Amino acid sequence: MKLVAIGGTAAGLSAASRVRKFLPDADITVVERTGYVSYGSCGLPYFVSGLIGEPGDLVSFTPEQLAEKRDMKVLMHHEALSVDPAAKTVEVKNLDTGVVSTLDYDALVIATGARAAVPATLRKEADNLFTLRSVEDGIAIRQRAGDMGRVSVIGGGFIGLEMCEAFVSRGIRTTLYEAQDRLLPGMPQVFSEAVLKELLKNGVEVHLGTQVDELLVSGGRVTAVRAGETIRETDAVLVCIGVRPNSELAAVAGAATEPNGAISVDRHQRTTVPGIWACGDCASTFNRVSGERCYAPLGTNANKQGRVAGADICGKDVSFPGVLPSQVTKVFDLYCASTGLSEQQAENAGIPAGSSLITKRDRASYYPGGSDNELCVVFHRETGRVLGAQGIGGSSVAGRINALAVAVTAEMTVQELSELDLVYAPPVAPVYDPILIAGENAVKAWRK
Amino acid sequence: MKLVAIGGTAAGLSAASRVRKFLPDADITVVERTGYVSYGSCGLPYFVSGLIGEPGDLVSFTPEQLAEKRDMKVLMHHEALSVDPAAKTVEVKNLDTGVVSTLDYDALVIATGARAAVPATLRKEADNLFTLRSVEDGIAIRQRAGDMGRVSVIGGGFIGLEMCEAFVSRGIRTTLYEAQDRLLPGMPQVFSEAVLKELLKNGVEVHLGTQVDELLVSGGRVTAVRAGETIRETDAVLVCIGVRPNSELAAVAGAATEPNGAISVDRHQRTTVPGIWACGDCASTFNRVSGERCYAPLGTNANKQGRVAGADICGKDVSFPGVLPSQVTKVFDLYCASTGLSEQQAENAGIPAGSSLITKRDRASYYPGGSDNELCVVFHRETGRVLGAQGIGGSSVAGRINALAVAVTAEMTVQELSELDLVYAPPVAPVYDPILIAGENAVKAWRK
Repeated sequence: MKLVAIGGTAAGLSAASRVRKFLPDADITVVERTGYVSYGSCGLPYFVSGLIGEPGDLVSFTPEQLAEKRDMKVLMHHEALSVDPAAKTVEVKNLDTGVVSTLDYDALVIATGARAAVPATLRKEADNLFTLRSVEDGIAIRQRAGDMGRVSVIGGGFIGLEMCEAFVSRGIRTTLYEAQDRLLPGMPQVFSEAVLKELLKNGVEVHLGTQVDELLVSGGRVTAVRAGETIRETDAVLVCIGVRPNSELAAVAGAATEPNGAISVDRHQRTTVPGIWACGDCASTFNRVSGERCYAPLGTNANKQGRVAGADICGKDVSFPGVLPSQVTKVFDLYCASTGLSEQQAENAGIPAGSSLITKRDRASYYPGGSDNELCVVFHRETGRVLGAQGIGGSSVAGRINALAVAVTAEMTVQELSELDLVYAPPVAPVYDPILIAGENAVKAWRK
Repeated sequence: MKLVAIGGTAAGLSAASRVRKFLPDADITVVERTGYVSYGSCGLPYFVSGLIGEPGDLVSFTPEQLAEKRDMKVLMHHEALSVDPAAKTVEVKNLDTGVVSTLDYDALVIATGARAAVPATLRKEADNLFTLRSVEDGIAIRQRAGDMGRVSVIGGGFIGLEMCEAFVSRGIRTTLYEAQDRLLPGMPQVFSEAVLKELLKNGVEVHLGTQVDELLVSGGRVTAVRAGETIRETDAVLVCIGVRPNSELAAVAGAATEPNGAISVDRHQRTTVPGIWACGDCASTFNRVSGERCYAPLGTNANKQGRVAGADICGKDVSFPGVLPSQVTKVFDLYCASTGLSEQQAENAGIPAGSSLITKRDRASYYPGGSDNELCVVFHRETGRVLGAQGIGGSSVAGRINALAVAVTAEMTVQELSELDLVYAPPVAPVYDPILIAGENAVKAWRK
């Protein structure tokens, strides 16, 4: 069996590794466009900050280790140009030499990931204009960081927020532009305010409701950012307003795609083209609560989808259950996490939803230290089923959102949530854990 | 309606407060033997250590505040001597004056708690021999702490471990005696070793498999501890080998008790005597997994059971779902938590059980800091249902055991556990959370 995986990070390598596990004799080739495989791209902000010393620290396996330990051929700096699903071939180009060659496959895994979305107005030739997807992107930013007196971050999503922290930690004056009138608009309003406060406390200059209209370029460098009438000088710009799935290769091969461009896949990560699987940030997935197709480009999902694709290729009866999705970000000392549907997402999916928000300290009131947890529980207005939750606070909020993720998965009701038996000790939680308070409050809101 | 609650901490006050909520006109009397009500007894080790400054810091409401805000009569330093369930009266003694009086009731809540178990060999008249249950106990220990060069802690359960930390933090040379051959014998062996290592690292002298046979007393003070042939000098002794439910009052009134002495109650916290409810550490409860009666003297349960008793007294259709139980303790920098059944407990309940243990770092491998989580998942050998879990590690282990508590409650299988969608960010978790690794490993162990 010949497997070709296009993309050598979370999804592609997980698929390839699963195939190796089940088929020791398979002929496996991994095609990677960049100079790195098997790296944790979620760690890039911490590489930029310097908390992580070397690019190699982010890497689990080098190409040589993959060759040796997993018997995989890894083609670095190779780009897949086209797929012929009838002939079952992929045309790849060596980006170093320009040589184009053809690979045969029995099974093809497309794990081409996603790229940073950059609107036409912000597309310029400038050596201080960055996006952050690859290790090379991270290296480029870090190499220039010493020259940055001021940096402009465009887009206040998770990556934008994490990069604000990274730049501030390097002593760079950081300005954040967010087109919407609040940060993290999928979260409760008070969370947006808390994140804003945390950014301001740490010296980030934040401009909400501010669309960057133009980057002023001079001598091959962005020199200033224009938003409306206001022009602010800058030494560098990072654009992180979202991502677009790299689905062109699959689409040209005839695979169906979703309205947002993500490759359509079923629960086995099969595309609509026989012999071609897709997984990771280039592919669509399913929401476990609504059952609807969705797009959730997260490292957790990519890894799991890759495993499912690999297992399915080997004829194993495995399917991907979908995503809640659960996610968390750290913004300086604040942790913000979510799982399942927000009230708005539920309403958009035609599910009648309500929500309830509480604030509760994460330790016994008399125990020093600790911090508040704010938890929002989203529930089905008719059945009381927990549909989702969002939380913000100290690091303990991550564990609480995980517990709520389990409750969402188990289709618990708010009543059942309020009756949970959770751990308690003064340094760890109050006697009524914030989750229980959130559950009780949600019961009251639901009964109204 | 006349309510009398005997016991003014978690269970008794929760019951009284629920009655006040539902019956604004009820005549409520709370009888409290000690000089404190409404205090968090789980905070006492931290009061002894000095981390919590004043006894009052542990108190949510003073008797005066309860009188004013909740319209309760609080009889401090009053002991209930006897109950006449036919006449519906309680005889109480004012411990300050010796005056005995009689209270009428329509509903009686017995929340007399538990006392430290002290074997006959360790019962001595000595002013440096302590147990830790009441605020007064905590004050007595703290007042003497300045004179303690060396302290002997007898019993290595949660309270013994927390008190070792408290004594060490005051610079007292601390020796721990544990009769069993390892600490926390309900936990996996590696957890016992980890806790032992943590104690030793922090300078605690630990004697395992060592029964203290005698306390040598001279001049009204314990001067030494004898275990077998070995005599070790000491300046104070704390006995914390377990607790016994204070059920004598209920038993004399005719209420049934369990073999361990705990008052038998149903799901509404009713005793077998009409008009008398019991809750908290004096009462039995139910295990949510096995359905069997059990004894789980924990603050969380006491609070919830009190609420149920109060609601039931007011005719509300509320029942107590039982306990997993979930619990956690902090031993210096180590957190140890459990939920549901251990493998041994499951076997004892006639449930065929298996278990699987994993170790996984609680952050991305490349992210600095963090600590290992060791997680043990106990599952039903036939159905794969998750029956319980134990965890040890950094503080993040508490949140993970809570997530597992939800899984146990929801009757998830190990397969479902392995398919959860949990939050991920490098500072918070690895891309495959320890819970997922534990779930995967349990699937493998289950399928064997």
